[in-house]
Amino acid sequence: MARILSGNRKQFIIEEAGQLFREKGYTAASMRDLAERVGVEAASLYNHIKSKDELLREICFRVAHEYVSHLSQTEQMEATYAEKVRALLRMHIAIITHDISAVSVANNEWKHLPEPYLSEFTHIRRDYERRFAALIQKGIEAGEFRPVNPKIALFTLLAAVRWVEIWYKPGREISPQTLERDIETILIHGLTQATAP
Amino acid sequence: MARILSGNRKQFIIEEAGQLFREKGYTAASMRDLAERVGVEAASLYNHIKSKDELLREICFRVAHEYVSHLSQTEQMEATYAEKVRALLRMHIAIITHDISAVSVANNEWKHLPEPYLSEFTHIRRDYERRFAALIQKGIEAGEFRPVNPKIALFTLLAAVRWVEIWYKPGREISPQTLERDIETILIHGLTQATAP
Repeated sequence: MARILSGNRKQFIIEEAGQLFREKGYTAASMRDLAERVGVEAASLYNHIKSKDELLREICFRVAHEYVSHLSQTEQMEATYAEKVRALLRMHIAIITHDISAVSVANNEWKHLPEPYLSEFTHIRRDYERRFAALIQKGIEAGEFRPVNPKIALFTLLAAVRWVEIWYKPGREISPQTLERDIETILIHGLTQATAP
Repeated sequence: MARILSGNRKQFIIEEAGQLFREKGYTAASMRDLAERVGVEAASLYNHIKSKDELLREICFRVAHEYVSHLSQTEQMEATYAEKVRALLRMHIAIITHDISAVSVANNEWKHLPEPYLSEFTHIRRDYERRFAALIQKGIEAGEFRPVNPKIALFTLLAAVRWVEIWYKPGREISPQTLERDIETILIHGLTQATAP
């Protein structure tokens, strides 16, 4: 029981750290700021976590593993390449709209990870991009997608969903459902060859 | 003659400032750094420009006016909405690949403009986005474009071309022509309704 509570407490601290790092930037944010948000003395944070680094690591790698695990599932799906890419776009938008602070930190603050974590994180990202581009490449070879450079296609998709992180605010006039529908509409039609009439 | 040379000199200083601000960030870059790049004493820079602020202003507003003047021309074109949007995408990619430092500074460092320039710059940007979104809206009403939210469409396009600024390096394996062709292919097909067979 104590362990479960302690786990929840750590999770709560990590969530608050994500919001703090997003608002202030990782470098400017202090453990004192975090303690204030959590409502405890700075010293007692160290019962749960070792350092500011550890918080950044937890956030960046949790987000990275979420993307990678969805990608692995998508690669295994029995589906067209268009359906696979659609599933990945949905996943990106869902992760961003549900957990915007963590995604923002993983996108913008990862450069502050200390080694060897920095290299590991960069490796995971590159591997993700490589595998996503390979799905697009296979879709082109299968005649499903237009014959574009798979890297340009990949970064056009990633730029569009990444923009959601910068722009999306809960309660704005555009709902997550509309965002998902319209981004998908544009990008999937943009990628997919029109079927012969 | 002396005035022309002086004009060229100022232009050269502004170009070097663009590269410096892009590499180091506006805040971290000093007039001493700039003097070193230009190959003169820091004091003699002030024969050409008044302050670091002035350089930032020159860069940001030159880029902004370039975008706006192309948009005005595009609005006046006798063409379909798809052709207009295609022209704007090409313009974005051309400006970025020809003048990447200035675009990068205008995209990333404009927040450091002092007032009243900051408000003026923000106003120009918003106006640009509003007019671009209006073109998309009209294309939807004309039945040329798919019925998506024009703001989502606008930011999907802008995110894709903006990414070029972050990613493009002259001499990389992908040429500006391929970039332009493939980004256009995806985004224009993404926006445009398939014509009835």
